Order: sequence, then C-alpha cells, then structure tokens
Amino acid sequence: MHLRDVGEVQVIESIRQRSRYLNDVVIPIGDDAAAVSWKKGWLQLLTTDLLVEGVHFLRERISMKDLGYKSMAVNLSDIAAMGGIPRYALVSLGLPEDLKTSELSEFYNGMYELADAYCVDIVGGDVTTSPIIVINIALMGEVESNLVLRQDQARVGDLVAVTGELGGSAAGLALLLNPQLCLPLEIRDRVLALHDRPHPRVHQGRVFARSGMVTAAKDISDGLSKEVLTIARSSHQGAVIWTDHIPILDETRQVAARLNIDPVNLAINGGEDYELLFTFSPTNLPHLQSIAIQENISFTILGEIVPEQFGYHIIDSKGIRQPLKAKGYNHFQGE
Amino acid sequence: MHLRDVGEVQVIESIRQRSRYLNDVVIPIGDDAAAVSWKKGWLQLLTTDLLVEGVHFLRERISMKDLGYKSMAVNLSDIAAMGGIPRYALVSLGLPEDLKTSELSEFYNGMYELADAYCVDIVGGDVTTSPIIVINIALMGEVESNLVLRQDQARVGDLVAVTGELGGSAAGLALLLNPQLCLPLEIRDRVLALHDRPHPRVHQGRVFARSGMVTAAKDISDGLSKEVLTIARSSHQGAVIWTDHIPILDETRQVAARLNIDPVNLAINGGEDYELLFTFSPTNLPHLQSIAIQENISFTILGEIVPEQFGYHIIDSKGIRQPLKAKGYNHFQGE
Repeated sequence: MHLRDVGEVQVIESIRQRSRYLNDVVIPIGDDAAAVSWKKGWLQLLTTDLLVEGVHFLRERISMKDLGYKSMAVNLSDIAAMGGIPRYALVSLGLPEDLKTSELSEFYNGMYELADAYCVDIVGGDVTTSPIIVINIALMGEVESNLVLRQDQARVGDLVAVTGELGGSAAGLALLLNPQLCLPLEIRDRVLALHDRPHPRVHQGRVFARSGMVTAAKDISDGLSKEVLTIARSSHQGAVIWTDHIPILDETRQVAARLNIDPVNLAINGGEDYELLFTFSPTNLPHLQSIAIQENISFTILGEIVPEQFGYHIIDSKGIRQPLKAKGYNHFQGE
Repeated sequence: MHLRDVGEVQVIESIRQRSRYLNDVVIPIGDDAAAVSWKKGWLQLLTTDLLVEGVHFLRERISMKDLGYKSMAVNLSDIAAMGGIPRYALVSLGLPEDLKTSELSEFYNGMYELADAYCVDIVGGDVTTSPIIVINIALMGEVESNLVLRQDQARVGDLVAVTGELGGSAAGLALLLNPQLCLPLEIRDRVLALHDRPHPRVHQGRVFARSGMVTAAKDISDGLSKEVLTIARSSHQGAVIWTDHIPILDETRQVAARLNIDPVNLAINGGEDYELLFTFSPTNLPHLQSIAIQENISFTILGEIVPEQFGYHIIDSKGIRQPLKAKGYNHFQGE
C-alpha cells in the first residue's frame, strides 16, 4: 500500500498512536500547536510547517518576499489559534544552488517583516542545498495555562463564529489558475494579496484567550468545513453551519461570478484564509461583542454546536439541510 | 550572484546579522543549539536539522529505518553538545506519493527507537507530499543555566579532547562510494553502521555539563578540523592539534589502507562522527578522568588552546606544523 492510498489523516494518526508522552505534554499532536509545561502558570506552544516547491507554491508564481512572509504567517496563525504569544523560530531552508543571493535576501525581508511585527526571534536554523526550494519553520510561543485556546472544548449550545471574511485566499488561487480572467485591478490585487500575504490573527487570538469566554478555536488553514468538523469531533459534539450567515468577501463573490462557481464553495472549502474559527456560549455574546468593538475585531456568527447524535450539517437559505463534509485539501490524495 | 558563489557560512552569517533578539535569547544562532530563558535556573535548547534526498542521503542506499534513526540522531547530538536533556520534537515530512506505508512505518520505527531511548516526545509535525523525501526535525531540550556547554568559552591552556574514536562515518561513506572494495564483513558492517546509525553522545554531554569543568563543547558533525576552528575562533583563541594523538578507529585505518588514502584525513575532515569535542583546564584532568571512568566514558586529548595570535595549527608526528584548515563539507560550494 502507498501513501496515496491512505491519505494524510491516516499518516498523522499513525504518528499520534505511537506517542506515549514521557514528559509533561498538556496538549498533544492534533491541535493547531502542541502545548507543554513551561514556566509556572504558562504553557509553551510548539508548531511547525513544511512548504515544498511545486506542492505549496510555484516558484514562478510567488515572489521570494511573499514566500518568506507566508512561511512565517502560517506558523504565526497556529500560535494565534491557541491564543498564544509567538516568541522563537527555527528556520530550515533547502535551496537550489542557482538561487540568487538577492532572492534569498528578499525571502528574509518577507520573513522578518512578520517576525519583527510580532516580536519573534529567529534563533536558529539549517541551510542546505536542495534540488527544489524547501522551507520548514518551527515556531515556539507561550500562553497562560488557564487561558489556552484548545480545539476540543466546545459545548452543546455554543455559537460558532469566525473573524473577518472568507474565501479571499481561494479566490486568489482561482485567479492564479485562471489568469486570463477579466477583472478590475483592485479586485485582482486584493485576492492575490490575501492568497500570498495572509494576516495571521495573533492579536485576535490573544484577545479571545484573555477574555476567558472562548471554548474552542482553530485557524482556517484547511477550509471552514474541515475545521468546523475538527472542533466538533474532537469536542465529541455535533455542529450546524448556516450557509447564508457565512461572511463571504465581496471580491470573492465577484471572482466566483466570473468563473460561474458558487462563492459559498470557495468560502467553505477553500482554506488558507487564516481567520480564526471559534466557539463560545451565547450568554457571553454581549460581553464578547463589546470586547471585539474595543479591540477593533470583527467576527460573524455562522453556526452552532449541537449534541453529537445530531451529526454535522449545513443549512442553506431555504432551510435545506445537507451533511457537512470536509472538502479541504488532503495531501497524498489530492482534493 | 548565486548561492554557489557565496557558500553556506555567508548565508548563515546573513541571517545572524539580521537578528535583533527581542526576547530573552541567552545563546543566539551559531552554537549547536540556541538557548532561551526557560523555567527558573534552566535554559531551553532549540535546534533543527533538514535532510534532503539526493543531498544528505540516497534513497537506494539507506533503509527507511536508518533514515528515521539518523534524522533524530543528528538533532540529539546537537542537544548533547550543549550538555542538555532532550525533551520535545516536531517532525516535518515531505514524502512522495509512491512511498509505501510499510516504508513510512519503518521510518517511524527508526525514529522512535532513538526517541524512546532518550525519552523524547514527538509532540507535533507536518506531513505533506513532495517529489523528493524531505525530513525536518526540530528538537527542544533543557539544561541548567549555569552548566550549559557553549562553544565560545575555551581558554588559553585548555586541553582539547574528543570522545570515542574518529573516522568511522567517513570510512562508511568511502565504502558506500566504493562498494567493490574487498574487506571483511565485520569491518564493512561496523563502518556502515557508524555512518547510518551514529550514537548521539547525550549521556556524555550530561556528564560533562554536570562536571562543571568543561569550558567549551561541540559535536563533530562537520569534521574535526572545522569544529576545532569554530571553538577556537568563537572563543577568540588559537588552537593546536597533534596528529598522532587523534584517536582513529581501527576499521577506518583498514578502509583507508585499501583505498590508499591517509586515515588521518578521514578522521580530521570526514565529519558525521557525532562524537563530542570539548575543552577543559589541564588542572581538572585527573578529576575529569575519574568521572569518565565512573561513567564509562572514553575520551582522548588531541590538542591545546593557544593565544589567538598563534593561529590554528596541526602538528604531525615529526613535529612539522601546518595550518589547520576547515575542510568539512560546505553546502552550495561542495567540498
């Protein structure tokens, strides 16, 4: 049997099952980041992301600066989803010999732009030759032990909400795959920027953690549908998403219209929006809304946590109920 | 200008120069691992290593089990060189779709063999498709703040010593490159094992750290000559190595004889022995020797730290002095 026959989830599951945890691991493999005991009252958060040329990016379609930015952004987003403060990064680079030193310098510019903005120190790394560009960043952060945002603590009756608007990154990708599409420059630039330079929601994650009112959280790296299912399943609950409540970026609607596809599909299954998906008790809604206004954070309620036996559903504007399925990208098996 | 024109050292230097250190970084980029503030009285050690198919290993020449073992070993060795206790690992894998699930399983077996032996928890990772096998492990450890083994604290008059015997990994590589070589099976197996399954010197590093007598330490990943130069230069001292004191593995001498090459060359420039190179005051020699006997550790004195203005030399058995040059492998520029 080959990896393409089993898929990414089973590969990760096979690692998880072998882990025995000999040290003080508070949150193991499976959440956005792992959490281990740190100084008194704090957890250390550990996360890593591997980007491979030809799989995660095409060298001719992304600038080295954006690539550096994005490599750091995806890790920052994982720390954000745990409510943490990012601190230290280890950067490993596999680089072709014919890469220009100016290109490497641009890569650093993009990486440090985000690292500096979030006070992250790059404390080590590894540089080696490689036939294709390979980037791995491991990022460490910290979070108060009693405030950490986990994915598995959602409760029945909790509302499901998301920061920002969805579908921007997917629209950017659609545009990259259909470059001939006739669209105003402002729209092109906006969705391409959302695809190449996502904003990690570190501030939002910190605000949610400190509020003490968020029961579960994840970043939307693999698509809304997959992330909602992960929160619900790991919390041993069911979930309902209301289609017409999903905040879809206006530019995404316009790209979808030109491509004659459903914008809801881009918003639900597109992934890489790096917004925060989170749950909280409806009794806390007024308080959370007032904090959000103070902190200049926008969020939208798009669903509800229900008992596990009710399953996972999506309800459209006509009240028609369909099963909620994970349609995000699955490595080794394609879509 | 391209990366092949500038070399690995300059690439790493360009990262180091950009680092400002916004958090509490005690030992920055450049040592075997970085060290940051951890719980009271302890430092956290952070290190990472990237292995790329075709650069660091050939898929047809190493078993997946040995590859898993080696990926963990090189990181454990970095923690060992700081005198630390390894704790948590993040594992990123880029894998071809046609890899067999049984091969991946073997990779885990090798990786967990070492992780279990040293009580390391694999707390997270990333798995993705890739046209070539790419492995990145980031490893976290801890060490008492006042006992950490740095590379930059060697003092004039210190003796330079090394654990074990050198040249085994280089002899293994020479055998892989010359498989037709006629040699007894015991010798073949021994040097191939030393190449594919190096023993990280975690126990030795802990003993040296706890002794409080070791002034500087590094693991020999890039060859003895390069590592001696790194200790001396970063300590702002000079160094002398006595050729006929270098402990050369007997099997390495036999492989060298068959290949008609100098075994000293394999021992000095070969690299990947993952023994510990360390310095200490000669007044502490009796005490360190008695500890080593108790702890079942063997080491050999092979040089001395001298004032910086004396430079870096190697003295052969006839008393002839030559400049000590870093001949280890340089990524982007080959040998």
